[in-house]
Amino acid sequence: MKNKQWILKNFPVGDISEGDLVLEENEVSELLDDQVLIRNIYLSLDPANRGWMSGQKSYVDAMKTGDIMRGGTIGIIEESKNDKFKKGEIVNCMGGWQEYFISDGKGVRQIPQGTGFPLDSYMSVLGMTGLTAYFGLLDVTDPQQGETLVVSAAAGAVGSIVCQIGKIKGCKVVGIAGSDSKCEWLTRELGIDAAINYKTDNLRQRLKEECPDGIDIYFENVGGSITEAVLTRMNINGRISLCGLISVYNSKSLASGPAWGNLLVKRIKLKGFIVFDYFKRYMEAYLDLTKWMKEGKIQYKNHIIPDIENAGLAIKKLFSGENEGKLIIQVSENSTKN
Amino acid sequence: MKNKQWILKNFPVGDISEGDLVLEENEVSELLDDQVLIRNIYLSLDPANRGWMSGQKSYVDAMKTGDIMRGGTIGIIEESKNDKFKKGEIVNCMGGWQEYFISDGKGVRQIPQGTGFPLDSYMSVLGMTGLTAYFGLLDVTDPQQGETLVVSAAAGAVGSIVCQIGKIKGCKVVGIAGSDSKCEWLTRELGIDAAINYKTDNLRQRLKEECPDGIDIYFENVGGSITEAVLTRMNINGRISLCGLISVYNSKSLASGPAWGNLLVKRIKLKGFIVFDYFKRYMEAYLDLTKWMKEGKIQYKNHIIPDIENAGLAIKKLFSGENEGKLIIQVSENSTKN
Repeated sequence: MKNKQWILKNFPVGDISEGDLVLEENEVSELLDDQVLIRNIYLSLDPANRGWMSGQKSYVDAMKTGDIMRGGTIGIIEESKNDKFKKGEIVNCMGGWQEYFISDGKGVRQIPQGTGFPLDSYMSVLGMTGLTAYFGLLDVTDPQQGETLVVSAAAGAVGSIVCQIGKIKGCKVVGIAGSDSKCEWLTRELGIDAAINYKTDNLRQRLKEECPDGIDIYFENVGGSITEAVLTRMNINGRISLCGLISVYNSKSLASGPAWGNLLVKRIKLKGFIVFDYFKRYMEAYLDLTKWMKEGKIQYKNHIIPDIENAGLAIKKLFSGENEGKLIIQVSENSTKN
Repeated sequence: MKNKQWILKNFPVGDISEGDLVLEENEVSELLDDQVLIRNIYLSLDPANRGWMSGQKSYVDAMKTGDIMRGGTIGIIEESKNDKFKKGEIVNCMGGWQEYFISDGKGVRQIPQGTGFPLDSYMSVLGMTGLTAYFGLLDVTDPQQGETLVVSAAAGAVGSIVCQIGKIKGCKVVGIAGSDSKCEWLTRELGIDAAINYKTDNLRQRLKEECPDGIDIYFENVGGSITEAVLTRMNINGRISLCGLISVYNSKSLASGPAWGNLLVKRIKLKGFIVFDYFKRYMEAYLDLTKWMKEGKIQYKNHIIPDIENAGLAIKKLFSGENEGKLIIQVSENSTKN
């Protein structure tokens, strides 16, 4: 059986170039004892992927050139020599950019079936994306009723969930996004208070208009000049949840950050976080998120692109902002009941 | 009676220039009801003064041109028409850069006499300086036994107290300072574990050597390239107490800060703070600091320059790092028992 696999050939410098990731076709090897064969259905494409490609150790081990490109997946067990897994079970794991993944079961978790939620929702609001939004907003910034929350990359996978949790907690929510259609989706569909198109609007002026009482909480996905503009409107004792820095991930050299003067004078608390640190509390988030989903309080948008062959090109959408919602590759057919 | 006063004539752009601050001699006016006449003995010169000169509102009201330059002072009540103050009492207040200060008593606090501590210690370890070090280290970063604490401007007024409180709390303390004599004072006199001369040493290399287990806590007084170097050695879940940014206060334009990537990947908690926010808890700090002083666990160095006429030139020492310890102008004779 053949297995199409994306191999990391070079650590990209700046933008990802042709040749950094190369598609190969290899044989699926025979299963050993305790192993399972997983057919990948969905592959998650995330800003974090760019960091993994850098060859730098971060919160996970560094990737090496020649490795199969790392990625979060949902798949189905096709064959199992491991007592913990049965054929036909749906699982979530780091299955990589490939059609088939052979695993010893470590880090592989079953996904409940028959819940009424579509399978792809477990890649976004009910997956790492939702958990990231949940802990990054609630644990890091402790939002209070009536506070003003600003979210950058607000129409993105994480940002759009953050906006909606902010509304559930009674915040005034102002999103920053990169197109009018994204802004309209945020205000009309998700019901957030205001959305600013940073590409066409005067961001500083609009923040002033939309946040007349200043900004209490900033959920940071972006970095760069957007952050500078937000910092000037932050209130004393404001909080910043540092989730991502998409604008600098493709920088060739270490980009400088915003001046710290406002952090000092305004006594800002800033905290970087990684969702994996909350591993022991995942269930708490999952219960809240499913409840809000059932109540219709959270919507999500998945941007699903078919075929593993498209992964190398598709990931660039994250940096150009072309994706609308969570970016996912449909690797193979979803033959489940979800 | 004559009163020499420094007047803020222009908001300095970049370095403080001649003409930005001008010495004038004016008459001391008659006391009105409820007023007190204070003869200033010590004037505190602090990095924060530069921010006050900017004409920007921060945690205090903006200064205007034509104002007497703002500054913290210790003085003696020469005459009182206010029931709360008696002639001969020693007080701490914002008495400004002048020989005499007439006050309605607001923000004026008596200093205990006969405690055995020299009066100038109330300008440093037992004054705002000590309180800043105390809350900035203990409240913001919660240092634990065995953790590695790095302090920039370690031989400065605040930094040197932070280093010693760090030792009291059982930390490994590494200071960064700008001369060999400062470094020797830190290690030989104050007993901190290591000191690095950032002007002559390879800071990144030395941090690697002196902090083999990484850095858990960074007490930030400086900003700029020193911060960049420290960030690369920070441990996961490290904490940064953002107290000051002396390296950028004279910048003509808004200086950029260090990249936020390390803050994210290492899940750093960074918190800016201003000592005035801890007003209600001053007594707690004061009791600990006096106890540690009596036990000989805290030493301090005051750099006292005579004569109010020298204030305009003396403040530049803070930015060149020429001062050794807390910079103070002796405005008039200390005729008290302290």
